[in-house]
Amino acid sequence: MIKVGIVGGTGYTGVELLRLLATHPRVELHAITSRSEAGRPVSELFESLRGHVELVFSEPDAARLAACDLVFFATPNGTAMQMVPALLESGTRVIDLAADFRLRDPALWEQWYGMPHACPELLEEAVYGLPELNREKILGARLVANPGCYPTASALGLLPLVEAGVVDTSTLLADCKSGVSGAGRGANAAMLMGEVGESFKAYAVPGHRHLPEIRQTLGWVTEKNIGLTFVPHLVPMIRGIHATLYGRLNEELDLQSLYGQRYRDEPFVDVMPAGSHPETRSVRGTNRCRIAVHRPQGGDTVVVLSVIDNLTKGAAGQAVQNMNLMFGLPETAGLEQVALSP
Amino acid sequence: MIKVGIVGGTGYTGVELLRLLATHPRVELHAITSRSEAGRPVSELFESLRGHVELVFSEPDAARLAACDLVFFATPNGTAMQMVPALLESGTRVIDLAADFRLRDPALWEQWYGMPHACPELLEEAVYGLPELNREKILGARLVANPGCYPTASALGLLPLVEAGVVDTSTLLADCKSGVSGAGRGANAAMLMGEVGESFKAYAVPGHRHLPEIRQTLGWVTEKNIGLTFVPHLVPMIRGIHATLYGRLNEELDLQSLYGQRYRDEPFVDVMPAGSHPETRSVRGTNRCRIAVHRPQGGDTVVVLSVIDNLTKGAAGQAVQNMNLMFGLPETAGLEQVALSP
Amino acid sequence: MIKVGIVGGTGYTGVELLRLLATHPRVELHAITSRSEAGRPVSELFESLRGHVELVFSEPDAARLAACDLVFFATPNGTAMQMVPALLESGTRVIDLAADFRLRDPALWEQWYGMPHACPELLEEAVYGLPELNREKILGARLVANPGCYPTASALGLLPLVEAGVVDTSTLLADCKSGVSGAGRGANAAMLMGEVGESFKAYAVPGHRHLPEIRQTLGWVTEKNIGLTFVPHLVPMIRGIHATLYGRLNEELDLQSLYGQRYRDEPFVDVMPAGSHPETRSVRGTNRCRIAVHRPQGGDTVVVLSVIDNLTKGAAGQAVQNMNLMFGLPETAGLEQVALSP
Amino acid sequence: MIKVGIVGGTGYTGVELLRLLATHPRVELHAITSRSEAGRPVSELFESLRGHVELVFSEPDAARLAACDLVFFATPNGTAMQMVPALLESGTRVIDLAADFRLRDPALWEQWYGMPHACPELLEEAVYGLPELNREKILGARLVANPGCYPTASALGLLPLVEAGVVDTSTLLADCKSGVSGAGRGANAAMLMGEVGESFKAYAVPGHRHLPEIRQTLGWVTEKNIGLTFVPHLVPMIRGIHATLYGRLNEELDLQSLYGQRYRDEPFVDVMPAGSHPETRSVRGTNRCRIAVHRPQGGDTVVVLSVIDNLTKGAAGQAVQNMNLMFGLPETAGLEQVALSP
Repeated sequence: MIKVGIVGGTGYTGVELLRLLATHPRVELHAITSRSEAGRPVSELFESLRGHVELVFSEPDAARLAACDLVFFATPNGTAMQMVPALLESGTRVIDLAADFRLRDPALWEQWYGMPHACPELLEEAVYGLPELNREKILGARLVANPGCYPTASALGLLPLVEAGVVDTSTLLADCKSGVSGAGRGANAAMLMGEVGESFKAYAVPGHRHLPEIRQTLGWVTEKNIGLTFVPHLVPMIRGIHATLYGRLNEELDLQSLYGQRYRDEPFVDVMPAGSHPETRSVRGTNRCRIAVHRPQGGDTVVVLSVIDNLTKGAAGQAVQNMNLMFGLPETAGLEQVALSP
Repeated sequence: MIKVGIVGGTGYTGVELLRLLATHPRVELHAITSRSEAGRPVSELFESLRGHVELVFSEPDAARLAACDLVFFATPNGTAMQMVPALLESGTRVIDLAADFRLRDPALWEQWYGMPHACPELLEEAVYGLPELNREKILGARLVANPGCYPTASALGLLPLVEAGVVDTSTLLADCKSGVSGAGRGANAAMLMGEVGESFKAYAVPGHRHLPEIRQTLGWVTEKNIGLTFVPHLVPMIRGIHATLYGRLNEELDLQSLYGQRYRDEPFVDVMPAGSHPETRSVRGTNRCRIAVHRPQGGDTVVVLSVIDNLTKGAAGQAVQNMNLMFGLPETAGLEQVALSP
Repeated sequence: MIKVGIVGGTGYTGVELLRLLATHPRVELHAITSRSEAGRPVSELFESLRGHVELVFSEPDAARLAACDLVFFATPNGTAMQMVPALLESGTRVIDLAADFRLRDPALWEQWYGMPHACPELLEEAVYGLPELNREKILGARLVANPGCYPTASALGLLPLVEAGVVDTSTLLADCKSGVSGAGRGANAAMLMGEVGESFKAYAVPGHRHLPEIRQTLGWVTEKNIGLTFVPHLVPMIRGIHATLYGRLNEELDLQSLYGQRYRDEPFVDVMPAGSHPETRSVRGTNRCRIAVHRPQGGDTVVVLSVIDNLTKGAAGQAVQNMNLMFGLPETAGLEQVALSP
Repeated sequence: MIKVGIVGGTGYTGVELLRLLATHPRVELHAITSRSEAGRPVSELFESLRGHVELVFSEPDAARLAACDLVFFATPNGTAMQMVPALLESGTRVIDLAADFRLRDPALWEQWYGMPHACPELLEEAVYGLPELNREKILGARLVANPGCYPTASALGLLPLVEAGVVDTSTLLADCKSGVSGAGRGANAAMLMGEVGESFKAYAVPGHRHLPEIRQTLGWVTEKNIGLTFVPHLVPMIRGIHATLYGRLNEELDLQSLYGQRYRDEPFVDVMPAGSHPETRSVRGTNRCRIAVHRPQGGDTVVVLSVIDNLTKGAAGQAVQNMNLMFGLPETAGLEQVALSP
């Protein structure tokens, strides 16, 4: 059994991680920390975990965490980077579900996250945990940066096109839509049901932190410059991301077969039949990404539809997938749920 | 492996049954029938089942069904009763998720369902599949009538009081609220999102088919007359039932301990701490029922809050629980999902 | 034109009041105060008011408010009672949308609201602003206590029965359901869409502040003791209250005609045809209450279904109705909206 | 008073038209027809209209309609074109809310709507009822083709750019999102709340009927070729359209001032301050379009956010605006509602 700790498990990423780990066949939950909830049973905060999780929130205690094989950070940005160096030193491996280790360039990180990085020396070592791109590196990693939700849906949808060099990479466009759980469980008047229910809007059009992350990922697979417009929107539903991705083709090809080939062996990427329109509910609560690729009216614009559950493949599920890889378990262990639909 | 057939799997009960059976460790899905969808892959109709279910819908074929150890009927009322006698004859056991075998009295059935019963001689044999009441009988049953959704939530909430004889059984009241999936997947303008979203209403106040079913269940555990007012409501959400149950106490007692004792050994009934208010989402996608019991201001009115997922404990999950019992499997096999929350 | 001021207009009651007053033919909006938003245009906070309201939030200024003919308080409980005595002194009339003047008994108020009352001497004078009960008194009132949302829906539904003396008043039951806007616009993690969307629950079963308010209203029309069980629930929708009300009849009568007679001349109470089930959406954004009355299976239990929009007839709309009465305007002025449905 | 008839008022466009006309100061509702509901009071079908509309549905009767000054068609595509020639002949003017007269080219119409046009000779005369483009022509029109919902939001958002010639018109992109009421009130299993609630998806990516309509509108204001990719999506909410529009700038300019100038005198187009993100709820139930224009990171991609209520500015409200123009009334008559928010 892998001895697992979770730092900061009081948010939506935390409870989703607990949902997945509670039934994972090879995991022993050893510690879950929260300053604000220390002493309180986890299942008291999260009614859904009654009968499944016996743990009690504890103060973040270095020794207790260091006794774990693996620690997940489900903390706000800027927290993990304070604690990770010591943990790695003690031999504990780390998966950070926040953004601390996602960008390789510390200057870029500082620009988008508004604070200096506490351990820039680890950025080079940290592996970006998108298994469909970096599986080999994840196997041996001490420190994995779990990708953002929008970047996961967008990168999985765009990678085949960019890798194959068949689109103009300077005019890519990602029009993305997310359920409200992406904004977290913090008290925030803007995310009240009275504010976001029965309404739809774009946000952060001038610039969103996931923009440099998607650019970086695409930049890894091409020499060409990446010009990307990224517009996120808020959907009045709880879970799910739908990325609608646009590119201009610069050559003739069979798109369906390009995608089919690229993801043929991926357990969590489902390339749907030509003409499909995946629904976010079809991946709800699962670690899957479903993708459909279109070329409307046979023109030179390719439209890719890519859906994930933002809390699962977009956060906790992908973290468990990374854990499975890091510890030599079957990649799908604990991740075989069928989507809850309807 | 238990060889399982499903008749009529194109509705919400059907897809929920498939979700649960697809990951059940001891089940082999042998046949799923639908006249309207015959020849179509199940996963084409239900995108959520892509990668999990390889079956193709087939015409209802007596021989193929008779080759199963167990057949689930997820059909409209009045269908199962036409096919069940022959199936039982052939040695196949049956769980009917519709209402055909729920009422013992054929006259009562005819009154509420508006058609004569096709095999009244089986009503006596049919076991009402509420394991918390009838576990022993279910073990050996050939034919199980899976309870309705409202009756499951209401009966589990009221049974301890009625069994203990501590309430006036002539003035019981069940104010129940259901998500819209309870109305099924048929084309019905009244259930469009444009009609039922962002609105709340009662329905069937003059009389609902689940009323005689709840009365019958409560009548099994008391000699006294059951006077019950049952008012169902429609909630703008997809899954979940919340039964708010009222009774007038006729003696002093420790309600919390009455409920705790009654359900101490039940794997799927969670009696919550005093003062709790269970949320339907805490049982979403699971076979659990969570119950809290209140006595406002110490008066003589007892208020019981009972929540289930109408498609799981209220339908397909309970059917799988019954199957587990009938075939000697661990009662919780395939039913250990953690609720999807948020 | 009536010169109107609003104290504390940053919540949902405030924005609803502004929506109604912005198109009211006889109102001039003179001042709207908010400490936190002072200096900010109202239409910047509430995008829906762009093009309709030019006002800027100002600091609460006694002189400016005293220059108004009428001041609405849309503040948290406990605020109005600090400012009302001076305003009345200056000749300004007041409608309080909070609870400060709803209960006649200062001890009862203190018990349920947890603070001593700042001006108990005004409680006797304050008129409870339910026009269907107190129309005459409202006409001349200086100070109106605008009723709570649950009490409005419940009292309108129960008054005919209690006034006529045809039910056992010791066993009344109000099972009420409210949309989430009833909880206000404050930052509150419990009301995030991720918490309350797609779920249903009861709350405050041990006791809710609207219980003594409903009891008081019913007590005004009968000599008998009022025994009432009140259970509120939270519905995953934004607006709307549905009260399902139960009583035990103690004589035979024509319920439909009792209700029809009682509300024959009421512009905002719609008694629906026998057999109806009113939907909350049918009153969305309007000042109406729709009521249906049932007697299931001809038994002695009467079931009344009463729906309002919690922000309109349950708050701001009723306040405008009270204003119309106080200032001799047509009672329906500015309140003739058709419900937004779907 | 303008004597008005409505053909086919049982859908969402019909009930919205009735909501607006019921309080319109200059309209007399003379007839509303429906074959399926003939003889039934309108307010029985639409509870929200109780107390506002006394009309009874009648069979479509040529003489009765010919007695109207104006007839609105709120019928399925292909119905109006059968009846319009005779009505015009009799001197009655017509606004068609369906698509029969939207496209000028009968061959194009036939291609997208799958049937031959019944009166192609009227296509030239029919005025496309987008007042912000065609106000002068609408004034004198006998026959107005009321624009589609997506085309209204998209054209209002793109017109300033295309008219000014500042974008590459060959690579325009409209990523649009609509609430479910856009799909109508017909019994359709795909639009059940159980199917579309809590989920998001694109649809009709290969081609949607609003594509040629948007292209035609943009083509009227430029000589250049229009290359447009249009991708509609379904949002789990009832009302609202959000068009996210993309173009590549081919010159430097002040976008904010371009939009401000273009719509300076438009009563129903609100150009929001720089940096804004309009919400669909801010126009709910109103005839407004709110627009914000962005240029992320100062690049050459312009992003326009345009929101309307699909049933109001996207259908019935715009029809009333057209009526006001045709009959010389103030353009905003009966259209001054404040959005219902929250």
